[in-house]
Amino acid sequence: MAAARAPNPPTAPLQQRMPAERTPPPLVLVIFGATGDLARRKLIPSLYSLFSAGLLPKGFQIIGFARERLTDQQFCETMRSALEEFTAAPVPETWNRFAARLSYIGGVFEDESGFKLLAERLEEFDAERGTAGNRLYYLAIPPFAIEEVVNQLGRADLVYEYDDRAWSRIIIEKPFGRDLESACELNAVLNRIFHEQQIFRIDHYLGKETVQNLLVFRFANVVWEPIWNRQFVDNIQITVAETVGVERRAGYYEGTGALRDMVQSHLLQLLTLVAMEPPSSYDADSIRNEKHKLLCAVRPITAENVGSETARGQYEKGTIAGDSVPAYRQEPGVAADSTTETFAALRLWVDNWRWAGVPFYLRTGKRLPERASEITIRFRPAPHPILDAVDGDRPAPNLLVLRVQPEEGISLRFEAKMPGLAGPLRPVKMHFTYEDAFGVRSPGAYERLLLDAMLGDATLFARRDEVEGAWSLITPILRGWRELGEPPLQTYPAGSWGPTAADDLLEQDDAHWRRPQGHTPTKVETE
Amino acid sequence: MAAARAPNPPTAPLQQRMPAERTPPPLVLVIFGATGDLARRKLIPSLYSLFSAGLLPKGFQIIGFARERLTDQQFCETMRSALEEFTAAPVPETWNRFAARLSYIGGVFEDESGFKLLAERLEEFDAERGTAGNRLYYLAIPPFAIEEVVNQLGRADLVYEYDDRAWSRIIIEKPFGRDLESACELNAVLNRIFHEQQIFRIDHYLGKETVQNLLVFRFANVVWEPIWNRQFVDNIQITVAETVGVERRAGYYEGTGALRDMVQSHLLQLLTLVAMEPPSSYDADSIRNEKHKLLCAVRPITAENVGSETARGQYEKGTIAGDSVPAYRQEPGVAADSTTETFAALRLWVDNWRWAGVPFYLRTGKRLPERASEITIRFRPAPHPILDAVDGDRPAPNLLVLRVQPEEGISLRFEAKMPGLAGPLRPVKMHFTYEDAFGVRSPGAYERLLLDAMLGDATLFARRDEVEGAWSLITPILRGWRELGEPPLQTYPAGSWGPTAADDLLEQDDAHWRRPQGHTPTKVETE
Repeated sequence: MAAARAPNPPTAPLQQRMPAERTPPPLVLVIFGATGDLARRKLIPSLYSLFSAGLLPKGFQIIGFARERLTDQQFCETMRSALEEFTAAPVPETWNRFAARLSYIGGVFEDESGFKLLAERLEEFDAERGTAGNRLYYLAIPPFAIEEVVNQLGRADLVYEYDDRAWSRIIIEKPFGRDLESACELNAVLNRIFHEQQIFRIDHYLGKETVQNLLVFRFANVVWEPIWNRQFVDNIQITVAETVGVERRAGYYEGTGALRDMVQSHLLQLLTLVAMEPPSSYDADSIRNEKHKLLCAVRPITAENVGSETARGQYEKGTIAGDSVPAYRQEPGVAADSTTETFAALRLWVDNWRWAGVPFYLRTGKRLPERASEITIRFRPAPHPILDAVDGDRPAPNLLVLRVQPEEGISLRFEAKMPGLAGPLRPVKMHFTYEDAFGVRSPGAYERLLLDAMLGDATLFARRDEVEGAWSLITPILRGWRELGEPPLQTYPAGSWGPTAADDLLEQDDAHWRRPQGHTPTKVETE
Repeated sequence: MAAARAPNPPTAPLQQRMPAERTPPPLVLVIFGATGDLARRKLIPSLYSLFSAGLLPKGFQIIGFARERLTDQQFCETMRSALEEFTAAPVPETWNRFAARLSYIGGVFEDESGFKLLAERLEEFDAERGTAGNRLYYLAIPPFAIEEVVNQLGRADLVYEYDDRAWSRIIIEKPFGRDLESACELNAVLNRIFHEQQIFRIDHYLGKETVQNLLVFRFANVVWEPIWNRQFVDNIQITVAETVGVERRAGYYEGTGALRDMVQSHLLQLLTLVAMEPPSSYDADSIRNEKHKLLCAVRPITAENVGSETARGQYEKGTIAGDSVPAYRQEPGVAADSTTETFAALRLWVDNWRWAGVPFYLRTGKRLPERASEITIRFRPAPHPILDAVDGDRPAPNLLVLRVQPEEGISLRFEAKMPGLAGPLRPVKMHFTYEDAFGVRSPGAYERLLLDAMLGDATLFARRDEVEGAWSLITPILRGWRELGEPPLQTYPAGSWGPTAADDLLEQDDAHWRRPQGHTPTKVETE
């Protein structure tokens, strides 16, 4: 198992000059929970796609590890049908080469024999495949199983000292805990076996093009930074809206809810990226330092103001795109008196020089009218209203919309004169979509993040202090909701934009939510 | 002839809340040179279009005045065929109603009998049509004839004291003189008979949507003004490129050239609109005060630096869109040794707080590869180059392109990450076109300006001090070219972007001309 020393972590991908040369070193990827939903829906399709594009190293092997007793052959068949189900039938010749890299170990996490077998297989692959002792462990397993697997890896001597021999890294899926205490516990478990630099906490939102592009947009262009502050920004809204209900995830969701499931991770990540200070360089720690600093500047919501700064809701029956859908409490696996929130909204204040006095409004929910994730920067009105808009009002303020999905892109709403002999002002937009501009498919978030982890680039993964910082903000809200019952859980009809309390949250500032609209170029922009 | 007092001049069109109500008061429009090219190509088609749209008042009459002996009926036939030739065959019923408003007087400008007849007809129309004594005189005649017509109008008592009885206004076509001295003389001639507020100097460029929209874009939106200055702008370019040659206008053009024909009027107008300070209100004089102030802040080009701050060229034979075209000196009516410039470029400096040190590059020419008028604001690079572009270079600077024609619109070039697993940065653009946004035809510039003159709104017309200010900048250049022969007149092949000296002008600042590109959304933006 003596192995080639891993190269130093490369600089961040955004800095790479020769992207085609970013091929990871040889390695074995071990997927725990390899027969589960995540592996079948996302991991194997992403790996197959990377493999087809020639982005995986020559020395490469995947070992699936799960409870089921399967032969290598059976595992391959299962994965092949997953591809057919969730993406498209693979090209036979390519699939055959890919399948040759797939092997399987059946074992229960509590039994160390499976891990001994794993250790043997790993050494065999080092010899057979030249995988050089490098290992990447992907924990596609429920949170309760993490500690067991991590400890077994340690006991089986499958984790190297950091910066010692070849490298070993671990990828952990969210949720990273369910409150501050459990997150700290999880981190402690991980840190007993792994060094922080070996831990890759994956939030697939960070793998999306627009999310990454937020940093490029802000810091590779000179025009935004001068107006990206309290002097010109009126408020910032972050909406992550889903049309789906709880689907078959009630078992997980009932004990989790929207605040933990979405706000703690995705929405706070988006908040940090849109609001952080410019990093001095683009390495992982410079960026994560700024993100952590931003989280530390968010004013905590406390028992005193949880009622006025948050809203929560649960969907009632209603209609989505013409289809009747049941209430959350009628979904399979949900308690008839469940108080789990399927919608959460927060008003946050960032207490620093740049953002003092600028409210950040965050909302997320299931069974909303549209699937859309977007950040809206609403600027202040032009200071001297010498021009009237179409209705005699002041000109509408500028809006910059950064759309994460669907139809990833950016648009700027501004005032223009309507054509005509005495045309009044109307808001219009300049817009840009990745598809129009580049005409190529954006790679899947998992593809990007898997490759980054193989390369040792942690820029798009959450660091310990970030995760704990996020939980520090979320935990008092959870406690307030639970212990004070404030604000009360409201219901909202499926197909609506959430409970009335979410609107009231903004009305305190005389503001309102922007309805996501995409980037349709031919429409005059309204609010 | 005692007539209704004209209403106070309305506020500027951009301020209007109810555009549909902007109908002018009753009036007679007298077109001098009514059988000429301008009247047939632009004025009558524009008037017919305004009439069709119901934008002309009930009490309205047009009198054509020209040298030819025509009956009213013959004049109508001539105008009808002009419509057919230059726009489209008119709707018969509408045309019949419009033709009933057309009458004609044949007369030579030197003979006062024609003006006496005009005075009689005007009084008749006041009685017949209720035109209330209001007159608008349109001088669609060569510059040498202006003085005669103005004096005859005065002698025939056809011009009221300003703000006295009904109103009388005069519209003068450019060129407004051919140097500072002649412009001052022309203004003196006009001012002996007309008050400055009665004089409407028309530059049809100012009637174009994008030109008007420049003010809206800058001052109805909050996002631009903070970066619209020397701190963020590297340079500003104004290009007005034509593909046509001199056509049948050699008689005029030989004694005029590109500097007088285009720079003195269109390009300096664009310069003032893009660079002026925000006006405190949107009335004509507030805006024209700012424009004049800007012209006063432009550092004059003198005999000492005319060689290094200007370039001039004349087209040689060449190829435009695959067609061979002759040299300027071979065009009909052009002297075989003509030294008239068909291309001019200037580097200007605006010596004020906002623009100190920012070069403004202006160029215009005939027989260039593309027809395009646009203003490009090139911003400084992002200050801290932590991100690399596709070629390992620094990220490209932001460009804001305000396109006047064709395909009127606005685009902003910015850096985005190319989709892909390690996508480098590439310039892309957000864009907006009037046609996409509004889906309606922009009214012709002449329609807009004719209506404004009828309404007494002078916002989009050049004031005396503006015209003289522009000539103050242009005249020393003309003198330098003529007396010093500096810089030498260079030739350039038709179908090229002008003489090499135009490129050298920018190379002094390590800058280069941007090639106009339109707003095609699917192309990745390059320079």
